[in-house]
Amino acid sequence: MSDYTPVPEDRFSFGIWTVGWQGVDVFGPGTRTPMPADRAVRKLAEIGAYGVNFHDNDVFDFDASPAERQEKIDAFRKALDETGLVVTTATTNLFSHPVFKDGAFTSNDRDVRRFALRKVMDNLDLAAELGAKTYVCWGGREGAESGAAKDVRAALDRYKEAFDVLGDYVADQGHDLRFAIEPKPNEPRGDILLPTIGHALAFIETLERSENVGLNPEVGHEEMAGLNYAHGLAQALWQGKLFHIDLNGQHGPRYDQDLRFGAGNARGAFWVVDLIENSDYSGPVHFDFKPPRTEDDEGVWESARACMRNWLILREKARAFRADPEVQDALRDAKLDELAVPTLADGEDWRSVRDASPDIEALATRGSAFERLDQLALEHLYGVR
Amino acid sequence: MSDYTPVPEDRFSFGIWTVGWQGVDVFGPGTRTPMPADRAVRKLAEIGAYGVNFHDNDVFDFDASPAERQEKIDAFRKALDETGLVVTTATTNLFSHPVFKDGAFTSNDRDVRRFALRKVMDNLDLAAELGAKTYVCWGGREGAESGAAKDVRAALDRYKEAFDVLGDYVADQGHDLRFAIEPKPNEPRGDILLPTIGHALAFIETLERSENVGLNPEVGHEEMAGLNYAHGLAQALWQGKLFHIDLNGQHGPRYDQDLRFGAGNARGAFWVVDLIENSDYSGPVHFDFKPPRTEDDEGVWESARACMRNWLILREKARAFRADPEVQDALRDAKLDELAVPTLADGEDWRSVRDASPDIEALATRGSAFERLDQLALEHLYGVR
Amino acid sequence: MSDYTPVPEDRFSFGIWTVGWQGVDVFGPGTRTPMPADRAVRKLAEIGAYGVNFHDNDVFDFDASPAERQEKIDAFRKALDETGLVVTTATTNLFSHPVFKDGAFTSNDRDVRRFALRKVMDNLDLAAELGAKTYVCWGGREGAESGAAKDVRAALDRYKEAFDVLGDYVADQGHDLRFAIEPKPNEPRGDILLPTIGHALAFIETLERSENVGLNPEVGHEEMAGLNYAHGLAQALWQGKLFHIDLNGQHGPRYDQDLRFGAGNARGAFWVVDLIENSDYSGPVHFDFKPPRTEDDEGVWESARACMRNWLILREKARAFRADPEVQDALRDAKLDELAVPTLADGEDWRSVRDASPDIEALATRGSAFERLDQLALEHLYGVR
Amino acid sequence: MSDYTPVPEDRFSFGIWTVGWQGVDVFGPGTRTPMPADRAVRKLAEIGAYGVNFHDNDVFDFDASPAERQEKIDAFRKALDETGLVVTTATTNLFSHPVFKDGAFTSNDRDVRRFALRKVMDNLDLAAELGAKTYVCWGGREGAESGAAKDVRAALDRYKEAFDVLGDYVADQGHDLRFAIEPKPNEPRGDILLPTIGHALAFIETLERSENVGLNPEVGHEEMAGLNYAHGLAQALWQGKLFHIDLNGQHGPRYDQDLRFGAGNARGAFWVVDLIENSDYSGPVHFDFKPPRTEDDEGVWESARACMRNWLILREKARAFRADPEVQDALRDAKLDELAVPTLADGEDWRSVRDASPDIEALATRGSAFERLDQLALEHLYGVR
Repeated sequence: MSDYTPVPEDRFSFGIWTVGWQGVDVFGPGTRTPMPADRAVRKLAEIGAYGVNFHDNDVFDFDASPAERQEKIDAFRKALDETGLVVTTATTNLFSHPVFKDGAFTSNDRDVRRFALRKVMDNLDLAAELGAKTYVCWGGREGAESGAAKDVRAALDRYKEAFDVLGDYVADQGHDLRFAIEPKPNEPRGDILLPTIGHALAFIETLERSENVGLNPEVGHEEMAGLNYAHGLAQALWQGKLFHIDLNGQHGPRYDQDLRFGAGNARGAFWVVDLIENSDYSGPVHFDFKPPRTEDDEGVWESARACMRNWLILREKARAFRADPEVQDALRDAKLDELAVPTLADGEDWRSVRDASPDIEALATRGSAFERLDQLALEHLYGVR
Repeated sequence: MSDYTPVPEDRFSFGIWTVGWQGVDVFGPGTRTPMPADRAVRKLAEIGAYGVNFHDNDVFDFDASPAERQEKIDAFRKALDETGLVVTTATTNLFSHPVFKDGAFTSNDRDVRRFALRKVMDNLDLAAELGAKTYVCWGGREGAESGAAKDVRAALDRYKEAFDVLGDYVADQGHDLRFAIEPKPNEPRGDILLPTIGHALAFIETLERSENVGLNPEVGHEEMAGLNYAHGLAQALWQGKLFHIDLNGQHGPRYDQDLRFGAGNARGAFWVVDLIENSDYSGPVHFDFKPPRTEDDEGVWESARACMRNWLILREKARAFRADPEVQDALRDAKLDELAVPTLADGEDWRSVRDASPDIEALATRGSAFERLDQLALEHLYGVR
Repeated sequence: MSDYTPVPEDRFSFGIWTVGWQGVDVFGPGTRTPMPADRAVRKLAEIGAYGVNFHDNDVFDFDASPAERQEKIDAFRKALDETGLVVTTATTNLFSHPVFKDGAFTSNDRDVRRFALRKVMDNLDLAAELGAKTYVCWGGREGAESGAAKDVRAALDRYKEAFDVLGDYVADQGHDLRFAIEPKPNEPRGDILLPTIGHALAFIETLERSENVGLNPEVGHEEMAGLNYAHGLAQALWQGKLFHIDLNGQHGPRYDQDLRFGAGNARGAFWVVDLIENSDYSGPVHFDFKPPRTEDDEGVWESARACMRNWLILREKARAFRADPEVQDALRDAKLDELAVPTLADGEDWRSVRDASPDIEALATRGSAFERLDQLALEHLYGVR
Repeated sequence: MSDYTPVPEDRFSFGIWTVGWQGVDVFGPGTRTPMPADRAVRKLAEIGAYGVNFHDNDVFDFDASPAERQEKIDAFRKALDETGLVVTTATTNLFSHPVFKDGAFTSNDRDVRRFALRKVMDNLDLAAELGAKTYVCWGGREGAESGAAKDVRAALDRYKEAFDVLGDYVADQGHDLRFAIEPKPNEPRGDILLPTIGHALAFIETLERSENVGLNPEVGHEEMAGLNYAHGLAQALWQGKLFHIDLNGQHGPRYDQDLRFGAGNARGAFWVVDLIENSDYSGPVHFDFKPPRTEDDEGVWESARACMRNWLILREKARAFRADPEVQDALRDAKLDELAVPTLADGEDWRSVRDASPDIEALATRGSAFERLDQLALEHLYGVR
């Protein structure tokens, strides 16, 4: 049993806004004091993180003067330099300021849309300068509470337009940055555009530079729609579009909980780690959580540390699961090897199965042997094997 | 006010299995006697339907002999001929027989997968013969209850393989048929592959003959995931993939209710009709519902009639809504016209907005005027305007 | 068709905090300026409201000095006096200030619990002084995000203790006030104690002065748990405990939307009005909604006006539904009259049915005739009958 | 580490219908052959169960002749006698036969209601004869799909009437049996009466012999409403009404999954075991699950064995959690001990807190230390402590 201490090779990263969340919600103000980005960087480095992700306004205020902006960026960069933390990812805050109350790229107001593009371009430059390779786009306010308020087809035209313009910008600037769209079904809008992994994957195919746009799926966002996050990740991987992941915890359809990774759907978390470990995903292992409003600063870091620790614990379990001979036997019984075999053999076409007449009775009565396999997995999660 | 009597131009169609549902559920057997397909056809014609959709095993049993099969098909066709009802759509039952307990195209068992292809090919021929233009594929058992039981990436390989093989078959046979995938998040499997409109749209892009494959989204299936059905339809339309629709009613995340169209989310239904009426959708207005198990034969037809009637009522309302000058004024106030205007003018590129500096204060304080607009829509639904 | 203008007899009331909501949420600050309680009162009077409900801190700040507190109360009362608006209801804000981050009556911290009691007593005096007859208790922060953080049985001991102490207080002061508990399943806590109408009803039975404690169920709170709000209200009425209602709109399990009444589940709203109109409920028709963050001040009042208007529209429809001879006929067909007849006749006991042997076949095949009845209801909602 | 072999003292019991479920669902027939009750008994004994629960029609058919009925009962009893398995619990099938399509105790049809009472009385006699001490009542069809179809207040009158009549019957017969109501929010009805633990608890208070009626809450039923099952159990225990438990697994709001215990919400299962182990609950540890339709007979028993095994594993973990000194320290930090202290000291009343003026700033900034505590619990679940 390892001691679950993070090392840089684990590529753990955190959003600056996660540990910095003060606890403001619809029903009350913050319970914690503001945390400057440079303090977040230093503390994250201390607990073993490898990298960070930031919104522009995690570092400087929306209405910072150029001098204030530069001062905050300098402090942020100094902390990065001194700690060696990497900026893996960056993103734009297009959802807090009242100007974005009806969205940014799909706001009904054209001036807002134009301003949003500019705000992103500003931060793309900073992201590139700080070495980020992925640029996350969460369209949190792109949506509607009521039916006529948003013509979805027109809004998707505008959404595509925004990515096409920004794709040109990145290309023209020579920035080494890829976009990663983060889907969410609802909250803070009644219904958000591109509500799931699937909708965003499909949307990406329509973009001019679709090769440069992928996904940043978040555990809680998919589970808010009752969807299986690991299944969604698998489809994104299968389509070559898993550019980034946002890990946290959620208890099914309800408000966005942003629990620490491992809390929430514990079995789901196991399958996520198992999938990622057995994939070619090479991005950061990124946590996007909110330490509960009940916690003080010490609780914030307990929570952050636990995110990484839980990944390491689950990784150990996932590896043990796959290495267990009884599991391998159960996988064969459940015919997972046969699922990997093409339905048509080399050289076959539809004619080869046009008259397929298997022994229906035998196939119908054969058990799938899934319960034994799943119980083995559960016992690995429990640590009793 | 019209009398809401369906005419052929309304293109209303029903699945044979809808009015034929006997009421079997997990907790009890059927409460109604079996309804032969030809009786369903005659009654549907009588109440004003234009077309029907059928599974192979709605017409003949899974293990019918060739003679029995032909006899049932003849009776079905006779009823169609005598009533003039059109077969708009067909589909394969790949979910009832125990052989499909772990799915069909993605069953871990390769023999099942091969047999499933054959079963579809058999029915594609019948579909073409009966004049269907759309072939629906609902992969109700393609999924899993537990994490290791299905390697999703391998399963998607098999899923794609199936559509590619069947696409070749249809092309080689010269059948004038398009495929329409029907997504569903869960039930009867714990998690189903291609769980939403988005996932299916994205999957289609990977197919060899993707131009011949689109969607058949169902109201209840999207609402079981808490998603906005009209928004999903809009994205499918936007991507040119709305080949068919399945209309019914649902009360959010719970078991698949298949209520008659109009029951369930009444406001959602209004926006669906409004969207379809203002789109280039040209397929049938298809109902896929289940008359509740409490109803007898008379109740079945009450329920079926009401599906069509509710569409006609809502269509009248949607037209009145769009024609109402006060609504048009409210749409302008809510800047729907501005959403339709590209963010960049002709000839502009990112440089044109690189320094966009609108009056932030003015934009931030301007109200979006959505509540007035939505209340007008609600009053049209209520019939008080 | 009436003109749907509210009159005092309609007993419409609003929370001061509803129209006063500035739009702060987890993802952004307010989009509207603060609204002093007295302005809310004047505007509500103007649009036709009859009464108001207030939290202590809707009128004065948590840390107002005695002089400031008095000044704000005086302004509030002046507005009430001048407009004739009635304070139907009052409540305490036990959820915004960080001191209540782990709850108030069930905070793990005993000093917080003691302070919470005092804060309520302070406002009970003010409530009584202003003429409120109902005192709402929403325990929004009474709950937990994690399993060990709250010993639920101990917490319920404390919850009961609080109501017993406050019951004594009200009795000893001679205040003419009844308590109304407002259940909610989650948000802002992961799981809230007394999550539904049922849990709160059951809890009340354990209180020392249970006769003085009832319920204030909210549409959205029950629908967040996928429950039928009208069914819950009916049970509360049946148990004599419907002291107050909080009306708004919601789209099923997701974040607390607080849409205006009528938006959200339109059919559910119809059944709520039908139920209340056919009951002995005599409290205010109270709206607890949040005008969406997209709206400016004008939109706030559009939204507020629409709440009342929708009640009046639905009331007209519910009355028409019950008066419609075809509906009355359908109700008889569906045997609603028979449901009202006791299963045992006067003088019968279990012996009378010990050998009940009805014609099972006849009962089993008889249809319930619910679809016809429900379609009639829907057509009344649509306004096409 | 124990070997997790069940012993009679563990009091594990199973419904006959669980292992006997053939796999019929809305979309397909059974995949397994019928299992006679006596076979279920013998196999359950073999794998280590202590007791069983049965519906009348798990043992004999609805329309069995008296001779057939007796023959089946004799075989059942013989198996019980030979294996030593205890009948802990019994119940009536009031939901499968079409006669109950609109419910039993609350059917709109009075003859159905009278017949339902008789059917229960018949089986109460058998239950008593076989030594059952608890009689479960799941009103699966007591509900409605549409608003006017059920007058909920009248239905609750009838529901109460049924329990009052049956309470008299049990008393008059001298049966040593207590009733346990099993709540469920929906499925197979659109909305079911007494949808949650809370609603049923509240209802019980209205019964003539309420002392003899308690609850049988099921994991999946509460989680289908997004409710915390352990919280619900805790309230039932707190009100002295936890007479029985139904253990299984579920993935939040969706169809009733009835997964084996341990599958589904793994963390929730831990807290359930922790709660029950630290309570005075003395009923059987009962499993009400459905082996997935994919499994053959061998899979059925894998699944059944795993239910017991998971309870034993979690029990070991829960005990280790409570015994861990670091956990005890964390519980103190999180002030769980303080929650157990009455808010008012002995002899205090409201006057003692009328002027409570704690150091608000200190209370507001103190962290609740819940994240550390919850992470310790999670690590006990993982088996890494």
